[in-house]
Parts: sequence; C-alpha cells; structure tokens
Amino acid sequence: MAATLLAQPGTISDKIGVPIELKKILVRDSGKPRATGIPTELLTTNPEDILDDDDIHVVVEVIGGVTPACGYLKRALAAGKHVVTANKEVMAQSGPELFRIAEKNRVNLLFEASVAGGIPIVGCLMNELLANDVFSIRGIINGTTNYILTQMAHQNTGFQQALKEAQDLGYAESDPTNDVEGIDAVYKLSILSSLAYHHRVAPQDIYREGISSLEANDFRYAKELGYAIKSLAIASLEGESIQARVYPALIPLDNMLAKVDGVYNAVEVEGSLCGKVLFHGMGAGREPTTSAVVGDLIEIARRIGVQGPPPPMVQNGQPLNIRSIDDLETRYYLRLTVADRPGVLAQISRILGDGGISLASVIQKDSDPAEQTAELVITTHPAWEASVQRALRQVSDLEVVTRINNILRIEG
Amino acid sequence: MAATLLAQPGTISDKIGVPIELKKILVRDSGKPRATGIPTELLTTNPEDILDDDDIHVVVEVIGGVTPACGYLKRALAAGKHVVTANKEVMAQSGPELFRIAEKNRVNLLFEASVAGGIPIVGCLMNELLANDVFSIRGIINGTTNYILTQMAHQNTGFQQALKEAQDLGYAESDPTNDVEGIDAVYKLSILSSLAYHHRVAPQDIYREGISSLEANDFRYAKELGYAIKSLAIASLEGESIQARVYPALIPLDNMLAKVDGVYNAVEVEGSLCGKVLFHGMGAGREPTTSAVVGDLIEIARRIGVQGPPPPMVQNGQPLNIRSIDDLETRYYLRLTVADRPGVLAQISRILGDGGISLASVIQKDSDPAEQTAELVITTHPAWEASVQRALRQVSDLEVVTRINNILRIEG
Repeated sequence: MAATLLAQPGTISDKIGVPIELKKILVRDSGKPRATGIPTELLTTNPEDILDDDDIHVVVEVIGGVTPACGYLKRALAAGKHVVTANKEVMAQSGPELFRIAEKNRVNLLFEASVAGGIPIVGCLMNELLANDVFSIRGIINGTTNYILTQMAHQNTGFQQALKEAQDLGYAESDPTNDVEGIDAVYKLSILSSLAYHHRVAPQDIYREGISSLEANDFRYAKELGYAIKSLAIASLEGESIQARVYPALIPLDNMLAKVDGVYNAVEVEGSLCGKVLFHGMGAGREPTTSAVVGDLIEIARRIGVQGPPPPMVQNGQPLNIRSIDDLETRYYLRLTVADRPGVLAQISRILGDGGISLASVIQKDSDPAEQTAELVITTHPAWEASVQRALRQVSDLEVVTRINNILRIEG
Repeated sequence: MAATLLAQPGTISDKIGVPIELKKILVRDSGKPRATGIPTELLTTNPEDILDDDDIHVVVEVIGGVTPACGYLKRALAAGKHVVTANKEVMAQSGPELFRIAEKNRVNLLFEASVAGGIPIVGCLMNELLANDVFSIRGIINGTTNYILTQMAHQNTGFQQALKEAQDLGYAESDPTNDVEGIDAVYKLSILSSLAYHHRVAPQDIYREGISSLEANDFRYAKELGYAIKSLAIASLEGESIQARVYPALIPLDNMLAKVDGVYNAVEVEGSLCGKVLFHGMGAGREPTTSAVVGDLIEIARRIGVQGPPPPMVQNGQPLNIRSIDDLETRYYLRLTVADRPGVLAQISRILGDGGISLASVIQKDSDPAEQTAELVITTHPAWEASVQRALRQVSDLEVVTRINNILRIEG
C-alpha cells in the first residue's frame, strides 16, 4: 500500500486534483526488510511521531485487532485527523464511539477496506444506494470459509482436510477460529447492516454458527436437492425489526450466490428501488485492501479541498428492534441417523406436525445393515426457528433416533 | 420517480440531513392521468417554468433522446443549476461539452441512471474504484438483448421468435434496432470507458455488431464447446491504447458473466488493485432508474450544503489512443457450411495457417446428404482480427465452401 502511494502520486493527483504525500509509516520493527522503494526515513516505531504531527492530516490504520489500533484511532480523530481504517473488529465494536469523536472534531472516518476488500460495498451503502430502503443484505464475506466450503463441495473433501489445505495455501490461519466459526463475518455484517439500516447492529446482536459441523454427506444431499451450501451473512428487515445472522445455509443452485466459489466474496443488497444488486470480487489480500484504502484516501483528499463536513453517521434513530434467531421464519434441512425400520418417519413427522412444521421432502439415504440404521434427509416448508428447535429436542429423545447430524436453514 | 420523492421526503432528508423539495414537473400533456399523489399544480408544459426559476437548484432529466433534452440540459447548466440525467445518448455524444458548461458554472452533472439502472457502476468508477488503473470493463448492459439471447440459449428459440416474445413482454420496442444492433450498448460503453480511462471514448470509436446473425446452431455448438453466447460491451487497455467493442461473443460457462440471464445486466471491472469486481442487477425499469437518479440527487444535495466543487471531469488528457478492431487479438469461433467430402478441412486450414491463425478445435456437424454439405465448427487460438478477416475472405472464395455462417469472438 505504501508502495502504491509512493509509486504513483502523479497518477492519483491527476485523478483527483489534490496531491497526496506519504509522511510517516508506523512499524513495529524499523530494521525489518521492506518493499523496495520505501525510504527508511519514513519509518518510525513511535506512534507519537504521527499522532502529534500537525502536518499529518489523514491517518491510515491497517494494524488490525483492537489493541493498540483502537486507541490510536481515537487519538487521531481527537487530534483532528481524518482516519481511514481497514479494521473490521474495531469498527464493529467501537464504531459508534469513533463516529462521535469524528463528528465532534469534524473529521472523516472511512472504512471501505473493513468489509469485502476490493468490493466497494461500504461506499455504495453510504452513497450510491442511499435512495433505497434496504430489505436485505446477503453476503459471502469470509473468503477462508468459502474456500473450504468450495473444496468440500467440488472435491468431496472433509472439513478437516479442506481446512488443512486452506492453511497450507495461506488462506486460513493456524488458529482458524475467527474465520470458520463466523466471528469475522459477524464483524463485517455488523458494519454492513448498521450502514444499511441506519441503526446500530452490534456483533452480539447477530446469531452465529460456524461451518465445522458440515460433513461430506450434507454437500451430497444438498446437491441432489438442487442446493449449494454457503456460509451466509444475512441481515433482513422484518416489519420494524432487523434480523441478523451468520450460518451455513442451503441456497438454490441457480442463485448467483451459489456460484461464488473459492476465496471470492459477494454481497447482494435488496433495495426498495434498485431490486437485487450483487457485488462480486476479491474479499481480501494486499491489493484489494489497497484499492479500498486509497479509494477512501481520495475521497477524503477531495473533501479536505472543500472543507466538507464528516460523512453521514451510521445511526439516525429509526425505531427498529433487533429480532432474536427464535423469531426467524425460514425453510429447514434436517439430517438424522435413525433406526432402519417401519414407522420411524411416522413418529418424527407427528412431532414436527404438532409443532406446526410441514414437510417439503423426505429422502431415506445410506442404510447401514450392521448398525440397522439409515440416514433421513428432511426439508421443510417455512417454519419458526423456535418451533423447529423445540420439535427437534423431542425428536432427538425418540428411541428410534440415533443422532441429529445437522440442521441447516434454506435461504432464497 | 416523482411519486418516490413526494412519498418519502422525510426519509431521504433524515438520511442526508438536507431537505429535498419537488418544485416542478415538465410534461408534454398536463391533462394526462398521473400516478396518484402528484399535485397537478406541480405539472407544467413550459420548460421556462423550470429553466428560468432561480429557486430551482437541481434539474432531473429523464426525457431521453437528444432533442429537446440536450438543449434543456445545456440551458440548465448554463443557468447554474445542477443536473441529474438518465440520458445515455446525450451523455455519450455530448458529455464533454456538457462537462465544460458544468465546470464553468461550478455545478454538478451526474448521470448514474444512464448506464445499467440500479447497478451503481458510474459512481463506483468515479469514486470508490478510482485508486485503480482499469485494465478492462466487460459488460452485459442491454437487457433486451440479453433476454433474447437467454431465450435462444435455454428455449432453443430462433432470433425472430425470441424477439417477438421480448416485444410481447414489453422488453423490446416495436423498432428494436437500437437494442439488437448494439447501438444502446455503444452509448453506455462510451460513458463507462470514458470514466474508466479518463479519456474520451466516443460512440464512433466503438466497434459494433448486433445479434441478429445468431442462429440456434451457434448456441448448440457453443454449449457443446463449454461456452455461453452473450452480447458483450468491452473496453480494454492494450499498452497505450483503448480498444472498445460491442458484439456477441462466446464466454466460458463457468465465467460469472455467462450466468447473467434474462433482463439482468452485469458489469465486470478489472482494476490494477481490486482485481475483477462484478456488479449484477436490474439494468432498466422505473424503480432501478429512480434508485440511481435519487442517489445522484442525494449526492448533489449533500454537496450544495458544503458549497462543494463539481465532480471530476471525464478526461485528464492521458496520452491514450483508440485502437481499431483490426488490431484486436482474441480467439475465434467460426461456423461454415462446406462440401461434405475429403480434403476440405485441409484447404481451409492451409489458408488459416498461412494467415498465422492456429486452430484449437474442429468439429464437423450436421451433414446434409441431399445437399452433400456439412457444417464445420472451428475454434482458434489467439489471432489478429485483420488476419482472420483476410483469411476468411479467401476461405469464402473456396469452391468447397458454401457459406460462412458466423464469426464470433471468444472472450475470457
């Protein structure tokens, strides 16, 4: 990124009519080898060299993590510096506080790079699509997870093997928890849904399930039923409530989101006027992040020229509630291991029916003569999450049910 | 659109902190029934009621066509009014002149709705993606054409029947020339490529072929070879040159653009930093147009609040050339009717070989015993357009060649 700013100041200045000069780069170790072309006199290990320098008007933060990044950001804003950050965790957790400091000091806080890298979804929600009331956002916003799921779907690979491969390729970290458990996607959805609904959606407001419970059979059955399995981050407006969740879900194979493979990201915004608009691109990596960060820098540079006000804040106090996952109404995919004998389905479907859950399809799969068990794959018509969970607790107590292998939601 | 502005002034004002008031609506016939809720006192048939009213700060133009729209736009800008337009023809043909008037009068000229309706591609090229050097733009930007091609591909329908169907559904006009001959797409590509390359790409700089030469067999063979056929609008940077063209082309079935069906539009931007970013959505219609127009209105309303300068102009005088279609290097698909006897392929491939054109695949199809002819489908490795055209003139002179049925380019 520093190399990009150094390499083409002429180009960027030409595009915007305002010069951008790189003044200082905070690093942990100034002796470490750097990309060629970065003058060593720009490097510093002392944050005060940036935060206390009145000639620095914009601070770019790509440290990641909460500490020390969040503290630096607060100090920079309080010192009247504009801020561009790629920090999803800080924006999701402390966005409102940072916005207040920015507003008070009449500076800009931009964060395009915090979600979906090279895809300009943050800017579009804040600007181009602002005429719309947003009905829903549905995103594949974690490339690591999507790479793993793509491998599991296309190579018939198990979760552990796909994860190992992703780690070997550098797509997954040695501790993959943040990605595979959906924590990273929750931060990003918090940012996107707060922008879309002009109402704070905190990370803890978002229901979350990871992908580690998925097995090869789920992909096989999903495909037979005409679905792909993707980890989706969804926020939707239901009446006066926002419902936000991150989980692996079945989506019809002909849906554009089903076609998003590998480390690619995609976000679909359904607006009251624009209809469904899908954005697809590289969600991470040095260059896509640079695209987003420098895009934000350009926007700020243009605004500095006209003494513009800070960008609109996230909230406008609309009276919206956050709805619990219990109040989700959707279709379900259930995979159970059951005793391979007559009357089993009758017992299960009676419990589901009593809970108001109507079956859309039932397939019996993979009998195991030794164990005298079979696998049952059930899809339902729309039902309430709370009813489904309650019914499944009763189903799992049935003597004929060995195990509930997986419960997935069907979207779209 | 007027109804949208009237219906939710509160909502939009809340979002941007600036009130927007609808003052006048120019109509041809003030007696015609209108959408409910539009006060008749807003209607006027006299353009001067708008152009000469100093209390009107922004003019929205959705008339379409060059006359009288272009004249109104010039007068509005000259009178110091900001302009939002959906007019692709005027922007493609007279954009530079309008920008000069806007700049001189320090007003904004925005035109998101002129390309791809609800997809915010114009704004993203002007703002969010500005850090990138754009390598290429590849778009499906005419919904009528894409609907016809989708029907031909999936329903095995002929061109005339698919066109008729599109007309019956209101997707195609009674005179469909502008759409099916690629004229509409040329206007839109002119706008997008001028923005992407900061250099004027006029409609007459863009090579153009329509879709009416396509036959059912082309779709059948393309599919067998692993391709879809789409009408693509492409602008690419080749060294110091821009090459821009609109034509039906084969694209690999696993390419996201191959999956854009029906009246949907899509634009893929390949940037130096962001990589390939695809935008997919509704390209036309009242509501997507309203999304774009009101988005532009919001941007202007925000800028009026801070006395901002006009947006960046299209050109920055980079020394780029426009390259002729003759200098295109790509792969080709050729479909010929030839005599069904030995040695024919040898004659054809000798001519192609002499022209430096190397064959990738040859399939003989559909022998006609009565006529003693067969159909030959040839794909090539990358070759120069001029060489291919020259060689095919020689091929068509061969006694054994009945007809060259189609020549399509293979992209991606």
